[in-house]
Amino acid sequence: MTERQGLPRVLILGGGFAGIGAARKLRKAPVDVMLVDRHDYHTFQPLLYQVATDILDPATVGHPIRELVHQQDNLDFAQATVTGIDLDARTVTFDGWEPQGYDYLIVGLGARANFFGTAGADEHAFPLYTLPQAVRLKQHLLMRFEEAAKNPALVDEGYLDVVIVGGGATGVETSGAMSELIHHVFPEDYPTIDISRINITLVEHGDRLLAMFDQGISDYTLETLTDRNVKVRLGEQVMGIDADGVDLGTGERIAAGTTVWGAGLQPVPLASELGVELVRGRVPVDEFLRLEHHPEVFVVGDMAVTTDSTTGVVLAQLGSVALQAGEYAGKTIDRLERKHKDPHPFHYVDKGTMATIGRNAAVAVVPPHHITLTGRAAFAMWGAVHLALLTGGDSRMAAMSNWFWSFTTHNRPARVLIHPDDDD
Amino acid sequence: MTERQGLPRVLILGGGFAGIGAARKLRKAPVDVMLVDRHDYHTFQPLLYQVATDILDPATVGHPIRELVHQQDNLDFAQATVTGIDLDARTVTFDGWEPQGYDYLIVGLGARANFFGTAGADEHAFPLYTLPQAVRLKQHLLMRFEEAAKNPALVDEGYLDVVIVGGGATGVETSGAMSELIHHVFPEDYPTIDISRINITLVEHGDRLLAMFDQGISDYTLETLTDRNVKVRLGEQVMGIDADGVDLGTGERIAAGTTVWGAGLQPVPLASELGVELVRGRVPVDEFLRLEHHPEVFVVGDMAVTTDSTTGVVLAQLGSVALQAGEYAGKTIDRLERKHKDPHPFHYVDKGTMATIGRNAAVAVVPPHHITLTGRAAFAMWGAVHLALLTGGDSRMAAMSNWFWSFTTHNRPARVLIHPDDDD
Repeated sequence: MTERQGLPRVLILGGGFAGIGAARKLRKAPVDVMLVDRHDYHTFQPLLYQVATDILDPATVGHPIRELVHQQDNLDFAQATVTGIDLDARTVTFDGWEPQGYDYLIVGLGARANFFGTAGADEHAFPLYTLPQAVRLKQHLLMRFEEAAKNPALVDEGYLDVVIVGGGATGVETSGAMSELIHHVFPEDYPTIDISRINITLVEHGDRLLAMFDQGISDYTLETLTDRNVKVRLGEQVMGIDADGVDLGTGERIAAGTTVWGAGLQPVPLASELGVELVRGRVPVDEFLRLEHHPEVFVVGDMAVTTDSTTGVVLAQLGSVALQAGEYAGKTIDRLERKHKDPHPFHYVDKGTMATIGRNAAVAVVPPHHITLTGRAAFAMWGAVHLALLTGGDSRMAAMSNWFWSFTTHNRPARVLIHPDDDD
Repeated sequence: MTERQGLPRVLILGGGFAGIGAARKLRKAPVDVMLVDRHDYHTFQPLLYQVATDILDPATVGHPIRELVHQQDNLDFAQATVTGIDLDARTVTFDGWEPQGYDYLIVGLGARANFFGTAGADEHAFPLYTLPQAVRLKQHLLMRFEEAAKNPALVDEGYLDVVIVGGGATGVETSGAMSELIHHVFPEDYPTIDISRINITLVEHGDRLLAMFDQGISDYTLETLTDRNVKVRLGEQVMGIDADGVDLGTGERIAAGTTVWGAGLQPVPLASELGVELVRGRVPVDEFLRLEHHPEVFVVGDMAVTTDSTTGVVLAQLGSVALQAGEYAGKTIDRLERKHKDPHPFHYVDKGTMATIGRNAAVAVVPPHHITLTGRAAFAMWGAVHLALLTGGDSRMAAMSNWFWSFTTHNRPARVLIHPDDDD
């Protein structure tokens, strides 16, 4: 550490795609980098729905941040929770650690589920934004099936029914994976339960699924999910959620012992400590992704309103946007401190978007000509891209092993309820 | 299920080696088998120390019991906790399930750590008998290192020191694996911590390690552990344990933020409901492993005093003994109900005993000529045998992948603190 004394200090808050991307791009910069996260792992968020539906082990999707750290000499890591940011004093306070000063601050603390005031959602819905949430959903589902195995009559009360709220990527991917788990894996595990009586329902407020894609892809997705026993309800609003089901805006009730929430994000509370008025719940930044009046502070990832400087388009809260924004912040500091050059405005490179609907079914849009893929080809591409993106070689190997087993045998890797607080 | 109505009902309590072995041997018997465990997974106990020291993911060592169930038509499973056994009414009561009657009962509920009244052990020592315990030990260790990364001075207070109590297989295997984790994996993860100042101490009351083996093996084990930075203290008794260390019988104090307990078992409380006087904390059974006055009740595994009928030797509380005792109970019921033959007394077949001390170091005794192996040959054999024993093909594949990475790169598969009750 001593050789880094006196160098400018870059403090990165959050070890998600944005924070990790920033840290990596600073590896040659003459700076002292400290990355802080409340957990000791980086979460590969695009695959959380696979943890929730037991395709992947949690450890495959949560990668040790320290493994990234020891690949980079000027980088340290601390596990601590941010409690406050003092922009004037250039100091961040933490729960469980002494206050830390900085010369540059990169804030990528993410977001959390936005229930838009839906009654009961906070208590009864399962969001899918973090790894503990994904594990909780899986455990809830497995416990329900274990209970129903002892009392099969519960099936008729909707005890095992699942409602997924939100027809975006999270909702669609979770619906497809949930259908495979319940209709292909559980019949063997729970021979006394009549699986055909279990309903999986996807509720979307708009008039089509995956609205960020073309209509053709929305149609394909609707058809594929319907074929796979998912009831899709378009143009419906969820007004309330309780332990036994959801109430729609029409007054209709759908029984469901499990409600998954994939319908929107809101800022973490700390976003309001950055001294700026939030825009639709996100922190506005300039074309260099910096905070107004504070050119030493970058705000990146799901927390920020990230605008592409070429097109002026406000970008979606996606992992690929967070990664590129974080990398940009790192590169910009590297330009200033090592190359002594002025920064370029942020430009987002669209490398394609995809979503999987289940075995041999996925959708993808590949730039620059916006080629649209569906079905097996898109599924194969989705698999290859996600394997390539998983951060570590060992996770990649484990994921490959898990996927191989899951997709060739309909069998799953884990399906066990290991809780560290269990009595024994 | 209907085709099994009217058949004799076999209730198996506990899904450990004994219960699983019993269930499997009943697959051809004209009986209705119900297996009950408080968890939905079978634990491969010999590898728990590898979960605690982060060589294996928990899901590799906890195998879904339901996967065994759907390979066997006459077998059902229920997740429930036994609360009472009424031998006269032939009924078992459960937490979370209605009472169940039986014609045959196979009780294999295992044991729990015996602290022998050691002050503070119940509160501060980490036993290694169950999967949640192994996960808790791992998380405790990782959290300590995260804290010390923020405050390296803690090392000198013994904050990261580890004491392992008990020089049997659990203690020796845990010591070796702990040394590899701390001395080979953590230096890269925690560059700011001076790893050379961390002490790992193995305390054994007797005068040698692995007392069930020959003196030569004990000597090899002592030498190997010492070479690997484990301080071995023979002939020492642990009198008290607190959050910061242990007190020995001599009055000496060893500082340690983590104390692992591998020094003995006691019966689960239910053992005392079987209407017999316990013998050294275990349930006495006849030569057919049955309860006195209750030939319909078998008691098998760590709960029971299992005697080899040929030699009259009381067998150790080992997985191999539990497996064979459980299989024997299943086979005996099969003989009675399908073959209509009288049972043979229980005979244990010693297939060898082994323990691993770490990378390329293990010990093994192979019958019938009691060939003794140490070093690489024993290590290779240990790996092959444990891979063959892990119950499922997918676990085997994942374990192989994890071990391959761990032993070729000194890198570990998980090293993350995923707790389902984390805030987010």
